[in-house]
Formats: sequence, C-alpha cells, structure tokens
Amino acid sequence: MSNRLGSQTLSFSQGPRLLSSYTIVGPMEGKGPHALDFDEILPDDVLHQKTPEKTERVMLEMAIEKTLQRNDTKIEDIHFLIAGDLLNQITSSAFAASTYTAPFLGIYGACSTFAQAIGLAAILLQGDFAGNVLIGTASHYQTAERQFRYPIELNVQHIGTNHHTVTGAGVALLGFADQGPKVTYATFGKVVDMGLKDAQDMGSAMAPAAFSTIKQHLKDTGRGLEDYDMVLTGDLGKQGRKMLRLLFSKEGFSGLERLQDGGSQIYGDGQKTGAGGSGAACIAVMGLGYGLNMLKSGKAQRILIVATGALLSALTVLQGESIPCVAHAVALEA
Amino acid sequence: MSNRLGSQTLSFSQGPRLLSSYTIVGPMEGKGPHALDFDEILPDDVLHQKTPEKTERVMLEMAIEKTLQRNDTKIEDIHFLIAGDLLNQITSSAFAASTYTAPFLGIYGACSTFAQAIGLAAILLQGDFAGNVLIGTASHYQTAERQFRYPIELNVQHIGTNHHTVTGAGVALLGFADQGPKVTYATFGKVVDMGLKDAQDMGSAMAPAAFSTIKQHLKDTGRGLEDYDMVLTGDLGKQGRKMLRLLFSKEGFSGLERLQDGGSQIYGDGQKTGAGGSGAACIAVMGLGYGLNMLKSGKAQRILIVATGALLSALTVLQGESIPCVAHAVALEA
Repeated sequence: MSNRLGSQTLSFSQGPRLLSSYTIVGPMEGKGPHALDFDEILPDDVLHQKTPEKTERVMLEMAIEKTLQRNDTKIEDIHFLIAGDLLNQITSSAFAASTYTAPFLGIYGACSTFAQAIGLAAILLQGDFAGNVLIGTASHYQTAERQFRYPIELNVQHIGTNHHTVTGAGVALLGFADQGPKVTYATFGKVVDMGLKDAQDMGSAMAPAAFSTIKQHLKDTGRGLEDYDMVLTGDLGKQGRKMLRLLFSKEGFSGLERLQDGGSQIYGDGQKTGAGGSGAACIAVMGLGYGLNMLKSGKAQRILIVATGALLSALTVLQGESIPCVAHAVALEA
Repeated sequence: MSNRLGSQTLSFSQGPRLLSSYTIVGPMEGKGPHALDFDEILPDDVLHQKTPEKTERVMLEMAIEKTLQRNDTKIEDIHFLIAGDLLNQITSSAFAASTYTAPFLGIYGACSTFAQAIGLAAILLQGDFAGNVLIGTASHYQTAERQFRYPIELNVQHIGTNHHTVTGAGVALLGFADQGPKVTYATFGKVVDMGLKDAQDMGSAMAPAAFSTIKQHLKDTGRGLEDYDMVLTGDLGKQGRKMLRLLFSKEGFSGLERLQDGGSQIYGDGQKTGAGGSGAACIAVMGLGYGLNMLKSGKAQRILIVATGALLSALTVLQGESIPCVAHAVALEA
C-alpha cells in the first residue's frame, strides 16, 4: 500500500492540485474580518428564491459555475462531483448535482465535509481514477437554524458556546497542472465520542476529534505543528479552540501558535455570533478563501486544514444521545 | 488514467474481493421468498432497544461484528469504514462508527448507498490506499416510516406504487485474497431528474437513473445485458422495474430476462407491501444475500448490482420539488 503513511494518513505523490476555487458568503460573513478573503459577498441571503433551501442550492451552483469558468473547464469534462451539506438527505448537493452531467458522489460529514471531499478527490486523482474532480459544499443560516435548532421567527439569541451557521458555499476543482497548491496528505479521522451531550456546545464535543486526527497526522508524517505555517481547524469556534489548545498543551506539544480556527475567526467580536461560525460552508470558505490566500501571497508555504464535524441530528439530541464527532485533515503546500 | 474505462466506469485490475459479508433482516423480510438467502433473521424488530433508531444502529453493529468474525479480522486492523443510511445526518452509521476505531467515511446516496460504498472500497484497494475496507448500511421500517412518511401509529396502508422499507443491515469486508467474488467494475451514476414528483412512486422516478447508469456501464465495458447472468437493480420495486424494462425495450436492448430487482422480489405477493421493498438495506441484503449466493453456488458467474437512490427529503416533497435520483453499479465476478 504505497499510498499509505502510518496508520491513518494517505500520501499523494502524483501531486494533485487545486486548479481553481470559488467562495461565496452572505452579507453577515461579508462584514467579518475575513471579508477580503472571499470571492463574492452576496448583497442579501435570499437571491430571489422562495425558500432558503433553494438559496443554499443556488449558492452552490453559482460557486460551481464560477470555479469551472476560472479554469476554463466545461462541466461535461468533469469526471466526478463530490458534494455534501448539512440538510436532511443532503438535498442542496443532490439537487445541484441534478443540474450537471458529472457522476455524483454524495457524502455526509457535517462540517467536516470539505476536507473529506478534498481527500476523496485527491484519492481519485492519485489513483488514476479521474483527471479532474469538482468538490463543493454549502450551508445557510436559515436552513440550518430551522432544521437543527428553533424556528427562525423565535430569534433565539446566542450564548457563549453555540455557533452561528455560515451562509455560503465553497467549491474547488482538483486536477493536475503546473501550478496551484498541491494536496500532499489526507488523514481521515476516527469517530470520537467523549460523551458530551450539549448541542449548544459542539466546539467542546468536536475538539477531541480534531486533536485525535491532528495528533495522528503528525505521528504518521513525522511532522510537528511547527512544520505547518498554519493549522486551520474548523469550525471549533471559540470554545472548541480553547479545548483543543488545552489538549495539545496537556500532552506537551509545542507550536500551538500555529493553530487557528475558521469558526472563531470568521465573525468579528461585535457580531453577536456566540462561539463563532459553523456549518459546512464555514471551513470551506475559510480554507479556500483565507487558507489559499495565505499560500498564494507567500505568507504560508504549507498549511493543514482540519475540518471538524458533529455527527448529531435533531432526533439524537431529543433522544438524549451524546455527540459523535469526526475530523478530517488535508495538507496543502504551495 | 489507467483505471478509467469509457466515460463513467472504473476498472479494478488488482482484483479487490469481497472477503466476507453478513446480512441481517427483520421478521417480515424473513417471511419473504428470499428468507434462505439471509444470514440472520431477527425474532423481532426491537432488539431490546428503546427506539427503532437504536435498533437500526445495533443491527449495523451486529452485522459489522459478524462480518469481521467470519474473516477472522479485528476491527483495529481495518483501514476504512464506509457507511451511510437513510436517517437524517446518517446517524445510524455515525453512531455505529463511534464504537469502532476505523477511520470513517460517511456517505449519502439513499438506497444507492450500498453500491457507492462497494465502489469506493474498490477504489481504495485498487489505488493502494488500503489493504481492507469495511462497508455497511442499514434501514428500519419504523425509522424510515416516521421520518419520511407518516407516524407509524396511523398504520397507513400500501398502494400499488409505494414501497415498504426493509428492516435489516448488510455489511461486507473487502480486501485481497485468493478467493471470494471480485469487484471488477464500478460505474458511478449521474443524478437524473425527470421531473416526477410523486413520493408515493419512487420506482418510476428511479428507473431512468438505473437506465442511465446501466446503459453507460454497458457502453463503457462493451458488454450487453446478456453478458451478466443477473443484473440486480434495487430498489425499483414492481412499478420501477416495469418502467426500466420499458426504457430498455424502447431502445431495442436484448437480454431483458437478465433484469431482476431486489425491491420487487424481497417480499412475497401476499405480504401487502405495495411495490415491494426499499431502504438502504434492501439492495444490500439482496446483493450480499441473494447475489453472492448465486455466485457461490455457481448459478451465476458474473452479476451487476445496480443500487438506485431517490435523493429527496421530506422537506423537498413539501416544498413541491421533483425527485432527483441516482444509480451506482458494481460488477461482481466469481
């Protein structure tokens, strides 16, 4: 198994790359500190659609089309479309996929979807199964809120530990070319359930999954946190970020200053978003926006994106179950 | 791209095989004509669990453990667990995965999950990314009924075109060995939406997706329906099966007698199950039960399993959307 490294990491010696990408966010994310990192900030979060579910799908389709345009690629030439989202039965992805002619692989990893998709795309490219792969995900504050939490009309306020679902979409085209960031490794995570049950604090539930995957990634690759210019987790949020640092420092890791979190950073302090952003789009737009800009500008040569997902449902919460979590990591190098 | 054949098919020259598998069904499926094809028929569909969601998870875990035992494999040695189910946020799979130590790839393809999982497992094996992969899916009449349709207490009766969700679980271990059926090809489907909106007739909505994938598979491989001893679709049900035959005969295909459908065949005529079985477990238990028995007994040398999924949600139906569908095919050879 020449493409395996250690017990959980896959390596991509053929050098699959991100050929192009596109990030769209809603007006609220466009008022945050990373506004300049995104390709498009929507004027409103409706886009002339009758329902927010339709808006979510349209955002994904817009990002798909812009990503293809940027690389001058036609959808007919795409070998696989890998997508997933938070909605029941990942309908935003499936309905978007029905617009296109590419074979569709639907995935579900909650907010870890982005890294799972990038990792799977790299597998298809490295293994000679595809020449190009399109990946994407989207989320919308209103669709997630009413599905997972309360009716939007209630206008429930944030507390210090809960998240605000990011309205946005992130899409990337992967393939082989002479330039663009390389996907060098993927570490797919185990499901970690520490018994936490508070759906208003998913950051604390997800932090151990992020820790498990990053620790294994470093072990498998023989690297330290310092070997990355940035380790961008997401969406742990402010609470989960704190927990992750605690876990690393407790085990004596150095290089904690390399840890950043997409969820904690996407909104400004005055935006009343509790612990920060979440939703499948959060780490997708932060990774493809902020992360790739760091690589393009030369501020970073090597980053690790660690997308974390809380694999709960509204029903499992009502049934008193704990929150199983997973984190998948992908290493991107300039 | 040495592992691609035609425009949608992947070929697996390394010969990844099904090393072991296990099928569990509920009492009702155990009274159907394929009872003898399943490894275990449950005495009841509760299994001492408080909720049917827990029962669904337990069935999946039982099938995972029996599959591993049969090949004398420990879960610690498994490189990937690929699983998905019908429940919101695929919680049966995610919660089962939290019991184990294998890296988890959650997928969603509705009732096409089984073939998507087998195809992905073959990719990981063929591409030197894994030495073994465990795949699985489960469904339960009660969990699906109350999530997608009506409260079970209403005791809604079947009409001629709607399906009865199969209670069961199917798991397989894939890897390399000297014996066991080989996975030779996988054809991943495009999402097909013909505009049909009747959630009480998902067979008619799914038939064009099955047709698209099978037709492309035959084109890519240069085979005809006659080259397979059986083409087992599922779960089209009686109505969808009829539609699929119409589509094939309209385009002048021969070999229609090779077409069988897991959904139409799993229940007997007297069982009042409308068009037949559905649910992610349906084609999984029919494929791993009936299909593999055909290969083991020598009645078939080569079969094509075509798992079909209706990618709707309860919400998209309420919002008046049509039903996008997908079908993934995997070829198994003795």
